[in-house]
Formats: sequence, structure tokens, C-alpha cells
Amino acid sequence: MKIIPAEIIKAKRNKQALTEEEIQEFILGYTRGEIPDYQMSALLMAIYFNGMSQEETLSLTKTMLHSGIVVDFSKIPQFKVDKHSTGGVGDKTSLILGPIIAACGVAVPMISGRGLGHTGGTLDKLESIPGFNTQLSLEQFQKAVSEKLICFIGQTKDICPADKKIYALRDVTATVESLPLICASIMSKKLAEGIDGLVLDVKYGSGAFMKTKEDCERLARALMGIARGYGKKVTAVLSTMNQPLGAFAGNALEVRECVDILQNKIPKGPHQERFYQETRELSLVLSAEMLLQSGKYKDIQSARVAADEALTSGAAYHKFLELCQIHSGRLNELPEAKSFIDLKSPESGFINFINTEKIGIAGILLKAGRAKTSDVIEPTSGFEFFAKIGDRLEKGQPILRIYGNDPQLFPEAEKLALSAYQFSTKPVPCEQLIWKIIHP
Amino acid sequence: MKIIPAEIIKAKRNKQALTEEEIQEFILGYTRGEIPDYQMSALLMAIYFNGMSQEETLSLTKTMLHSGIVVDFSKIPQFKVDKHSTGGVGDKTSLILGPIIAACGVAVPMISGRGLGHTGGTLDKLESIPGFNTQLSLEQFQKAVSEKLICFIGQTKDICPADKKIYALRDVTATVESLPLICASIMSKKLAEGIDGLVLDVKYGSGAFMKTKEDCERLARALMGIARGYGKKVTAVLSTMNQPLGAFAGNALEVRECVDILQNKIPKGPHQERFYQETRELSLVLSAEMLLQSGKYKDIQSARVAADEALTSGAAYHKFLELCQIHSGRLNELPEAKSFIDLKSPESGFINFINTEKIGIAGILLKAGRAKTSDVIEPTSGFEFFAKIGDRLEKGQPILRIYGNDPQLFPEAEKLALSAYQFSTKPVPCEQLIWKIIHP
Repeated sequence: MKIIPAEIIKAKRNKQALTEEEIQEFILGYTRGEIPDYQMSALLMAIYFNGMSQEETLSLTKTMLHSGIVVDFSKIPQFKVDKHSTGGVGDKTSLILGPIIAACGVAVPMISGRGLGHTGGTLDKLESIPGFNTQLSLEQFQKAVSEKLICFIGQTKDICPADKKIYALRDVTATVESLPLICASIMSKKLAEGIDGLVLDVKYGSGAFMKTKEDCERLARALMGIARGYGKKVTAVLSTMNQPLGAFAGNALEVRECVDILQNKIPKGPHQERFYQETRELSLVLSAEMLLQSGKYKDIQSARVAADEALTSGAAYHKFLELCQIHSGRLNELPEAKSFIDLKSPESGFINFINTEKIGIAGILLKAGRAKTSDVIEPTSGFEFFAKIGDRLEKGQPILRIYGNDPQLFPEAEKLALSAYQFSTKPVPCEQLIWKIIHP
Repeated sequence: MKIIPAEIIKAKRNKQALTEEEIQEFILGYTRGEIPDYQMSALLMAIYFNGMSQEETLSLTKTMLHSGIVVDFSKIPQFKVDKHSTGGVGDKTSLILGPIIAACGVAVPMISGRGLGHTGGTLDKLESIPGFNTQLSLEQFQKAVSEKLICFIGQTKDICPADKKIYALRDVTATVESLPLICASIMSKKLAEGIDGLVLDVKYGSGAFMKTKEDCERLARALMGIARGYGKKVTAVLSTMNQPLGAFAGNALEVRECVDILQNKIPKGPHQERFYQETRELSLVLSAEMLLQSGKYKDIQSARVAADEALTSGAAYHKFLELCQIHSGRLNELPEAKSFIDLKSPESGFINFINTEKIGIAGILLKAGRAKTSDVIEPTSGFEFFAKIGDRLEKGQPILRIYGNDPQLFPEAEKLALSAYQFSTKPVPCEQLIWKIIHP
């Protein structure tokens, strides 16, 4: 090794910028097991406090990316685009936009994550479809994307092993919440997909990692900087997570919502139509941005028209059924919960705040999410939302429905979920779905 | 374990104060091997950035102290006092003040360190006396202090094992330079000696750990706060390390300087007398403060008279000879270097700055000190100083003498040592030996 690890830690501790060579030697030395965990965790904590310049973050991303393989899609002539969301509750757009993009003739190779903590994960949602197998090999993944333009797989051990090892360490050393570390972790994995373009759905609010719009924009711009540094097309959609997205949160429940939207069967209930439209609209906005990047459309309006057409024509639904075939999923067997209970509003008034993270944690109590990676998910558990910010409720009116197979889990979840809502006696404006879209 | 280590790290990272129980569980959990190095190093880095309150530092000291044994001197009726220096180049006062204190009938149980980096260590100096054995058992140590009122030993595995394990980790994770960590490390070891009083020689300047007077005073007051929290008498002498102390730096050379002073045989050379007087004066000032703490003297003037008397009468020298007997040292065989070389001043002018740390590092090149703990020391190597800050030299006049047995090591050391001196054409005031003395 050309570097002295303690000197690198000291330099970062003293706010000195690290060179690309120093970052590379440290990270790869760590990945190979030559630098011990205790030096890596000290460096991570120093980065937590002193940050990294854009140049350093780019070097870190590059090192993590090249610690493993980059999927080779050079034989696929189509533009390859992916979407990455920073996560939230009820965030299910991948299941709609993936099929839309593929139906429009653009390739969408998606390497997705599982839910951890209060946020959900695309793989968990898809696996609520009986038989749906996300454990495909990289070869199967490449074949499916080549033939059907779409496929979903999980992280493999060949992709970004440095990130995998570092992420596990960050989790137990209180060094997760660091902008450059988050950016390098996200972008190294996305760049490993061999994509040409990326649309970021960066969320702010009570259920997002970034609580404020300012922090959200900072994260968006940092992620975009890295993507641009790699010559990728990149767009960021900054959207709210001050309330759950759409009508449902919970794995099979969210698949049902997406399938309803793909089938153009949006229920006409007093609140359902409005909440389904949130999911549909965000999926279409993201789809249009992805399609625009492909260069197939002259402007964002044309791209949006194409996305709308793919959805309303049923082409996207057809693609979703193909996707189920690729992954051996039996959509007609999508499970439903055996029980549900409606929760009553504890107050009269206008909802003026929803602690969305609490809703997500209440979901963990229902086993709709995981507290630790080894937890097993109950696919039918979750919530249906009857009211959101700005809605007026009388005390005792239904505010939320809890679904699940084990009613013994309901009381604790009920208590926590209800505590997430705050009320005002005065009217409250409803929450805007999308704050802004940033193009490079 | 009652605590979740990652939560403790996060709390400190977020500037929250830790409770005594949290500190205890974390530190003892780490010492027992239940908490891994990587979580300890993340906590250490968080402490580096966010500090610790006086209460937290006290809890940390207490935990480290009680991770091992506290030497029991309850059967020794005399007051027991020690001195701790924060380290420097040519800092040899323990060899003079120890015998003075014991000669005055006050017990001085000294658990000393070895040199590491640019600073020297008392044990290394004493071991330059052929046969001098510092590896006595705790029982032998207790017996010697009981009978002769003086003994020097090194750190044992029974004393502060938590500090030993944490210190080794700090060294390789760039977390040494943290005030609360330094304080807890120093004080836990000193409190384990079973002393009643402590005089701190806290150094500032180019060869000290604390470069500025302000930082030096901050360290002094933090150390004093802990000592007071334990009901110990404590005094801090804030002295300069902007230049090496005394006439020599190097193990056997420093023993020679001390023995000369103890024998009242100070050479009458143009510079020697002045530099010997620095060592003598600082030793006497520290001795007087130690004696004052014992309660045997009515004021600092009487204590100083007693210290002067012990030194000039030869009583202290007699005690030093007893000390050599305790440790089987053959003082008459003190080795001398086979070679020396005088370095010429590269410029004419007044010395206005000496990079004392560089002198110390040049000493490592001569094997007078260690770069790593496994290095073996050459006892005869070192420097004799011919000029200090404020002295005027003509270009080519001798400025420094290098001693050693291996002249091949001289050129590198010569280059580095000479580069430590800076000159001014205008007169420069000489460096004050003692800046201030802080009583509780």
C-alpha cells in the first residue's frame, strides 16, 4: 500500500481534501481487507463531520463503482434509463413507470433495493406477487432487458462490493447521514447498471430522508453533479413525502394500486380517486422525463403524450404482464389481508401535519416493513389512506384503514399511526405533489 | 449490555452529552471485547469533533481508572505526590525532583512512560544507566516507596487496561489530539498510582503537544478539574517548550546533566551554566510545589528553601544513588558516545525560533528516540545545545553538537536539526522558562 491509513484519516479530520489516489487506495484496501474496519469507521466519521468536495465525492463514487463489475449493455441499441427514488412511504412509481418506458421502446434495467426502516423497497413489493423471482442472474437480467426492455433485480455481490461492505459499517457506526457518502453509495450502484440516463425522484418532508426542501435540493444537485461527471443524462424531480404517496402503503396493497392504474380502473370513491391520481401523476411525470432523455421525443410535451398513451392504451399493462412472466410471478394470485380495521379521527379539524415516518414505522409493527434485514415481511399488511393534509374530518370519521392477517398486531400500530396526524381548526392548503424539476 | 452502541455513537455525533452509565457500559464493553474496535473508533472520532463536558470527562476517567487496579499505598503514612509532564525535548526534571522530594521525607511513587515520537520518556533515560531495571513488580514498587519513599516503574497490564486498549486504537485512527481523551488517559493512569497530590508540568510551544499558551492553559485547567473531582491536591506549572530544556537532549546525556546538577557540579562554560540552570530551576520550582502540597511546609517559600537545601546539601544526590540501588543501576558505568560532530550556524543573527519538534525528530534519526514502539534506543545518542532563542551567533559558529556511536546517522540528523533554527537580524528577547503557575 502506498498510503498510511492513519495519515489519510488525519488529513480528512483536518479538513484537507483527499486525492483520487488516496481515496482509491483507502477504499480498495478496505474492500480487500487490508485496512481494518476501525480505520474505515474513523474515516467515515471524519467525512460525516468535514464532508467531501464534489471532486472527492466523484473519486469515491468511481472507486466504489469499479470495486465490482459494470453491467455491459453495449449490445442493446436502445437508450437505457433508470429512476432512483430516495425513498418514502407508499412510493410505488417504479411498478408503473418501468412498464411505460419499456412499452415506449426504451430500455429500463432496474437494480432495486429492499425496504429497511420506515421506507419501502421495490423488490419487496414485487415479491408480494406469488412466485415473483427477483433473484435472476446477471445473464438473465441482460437477456430480459435485451428482449423485453425491462427487468428488475436486486443488488448482487458482484456489483459495488466496496459499497456493500462500507454500507454495513455505516449502519452500525452512526455514519449513514452524510451527503457525500449517500451520494457515492447511490450513484455507484446506479452507474453499475450500465445506464445512459437517470431520473432522480428526490423526496423531502416528514417521511423522507431529507426533511427540508433545501436539503432535498442539495442532495439532488450533489447526485446530479456525479451523474454529469460520468457523462450521464440526469434530471431530478423534487417531490413531497410530507404524506404517504397514493392510496395505499404495504406491499401487495401497493401492487394492487399500481395494477388498477395500469388497467385504467381507478376507483371512484370520495378520496380514492384523488389519491390514486397522485401515484398516476408522479409516475407519468417521471416517465416523461425518462423518455425525454432517450432522445426519441422532441420535447417534454411529446414525451408526456407518449407516456400517457402507453398507460391509457394498456400497452404498459401488457408490459407489466410480460414482466410478471419474466420473473415467474402469478399476478392473479396476489394475496389479500384476512382482516382490516378502520381507525377513527381522534379530533375534528383540518389535517395540517402527518408524521409520515411514524406511519412507516407503524407499518413495521404490522410486518409490512423491516426493522432489521433479517425480518420477514407479511405482504398483505399495510394501510389505506382516507385523508391527507388539508382534508377536513369530524371526530370519529374514518381516517385510516389497517390491513393484515394478524389482528394482534393492530393495536400497537393503530396507536402509533394515529399519533402521526395533527389537526388545525383553520383551513390548511393541500400538499403540492411536485415542488420542482431540475434539468442539468 | 444495556446500551445500543450505535445509538451512543449517534448521540455523541449529535452533540448530546453521554451519561456516566452510557460511558461506563461502552468503555467496559469495549475493554471486554464485546464492543468492536470499529464502533470505538467511530465514537472516538465523534468525541474528537464534539468534545466532552467536564462531567463526561470525569466519568470517562473514572471508568478507565476502575477498569484496572488502583495501587494501595494506604499503609504508607507519608503524603504521596507525583509530577506529570505533558512532554518535550530535554525534559528531564523527574530525575532531579524525585530524589529531592524523597529526601524531604515525602513519598514519590512514579509510574512513568517511554518516549514515543519526538518527546523523551523517563524510563528510557533511567535505562541508559547500565543494569537499571524498571520492570519491578507492583509489590516491589510498593515496598521501595514504603522504605525509600521513591521508585520508578512503567505502566503494567493491571493498571488502566481500558486506557491501554483505547490508546493503541487512537494512535492508528487519528484521534489522539482530543482534549477530553488526553485528559482521561493521563489522569486515569495518575489516579491509579494511589497518590494524594499531583503537580502538572504543562508545556506549550514548538516542541509541545499544545502549541499555544492558550491551549496549554486549557489543557492544564481540564486536567486540574479531574484531579479536583477526585479530591486530589493539584497544581499546574505552565512552562515553555519553544526550545529544548537544559543543556542536553538524549538519554545518557540527560542523566549526566541531572547527576551533575545533583552533585552541584555545573560546568562553567559560556552557555552550559545558563542551560544547566534551566533544568535546575524548573526542577526546584516543581519540587517546591510538590512539597507544598504535602502540608509539611507553611508556604511556598519554605517549601522552596527545603528543596534548595535538599539539592545543595547532597541529600537529593544520596537519594538518587539509593534509587540506583533499588533498580540495580550502575551509575558509574553510564555510557558515553564514541563520536560527536559540531554543527555550524548557517547564518549570522539572533535565533528567533527553534522548531523543537524537529530537534526531537532529528533525535529519532540518531536512535535517541523511537518512531514506533518496537524501535530500540541508542542511549548515548543526542544533542548538546550551544545556543537558544535570543542568542546571537556568527555564521560558522557552533550551534549544536550531535553525539552518537554511528556517524553514518549524523548527516540526516544534522540536516533536519539545522533546519529547526530561524534567525533575525534584530535582537530577540530570550524565552521565559515558566509562564505561570496555577493553584486550584
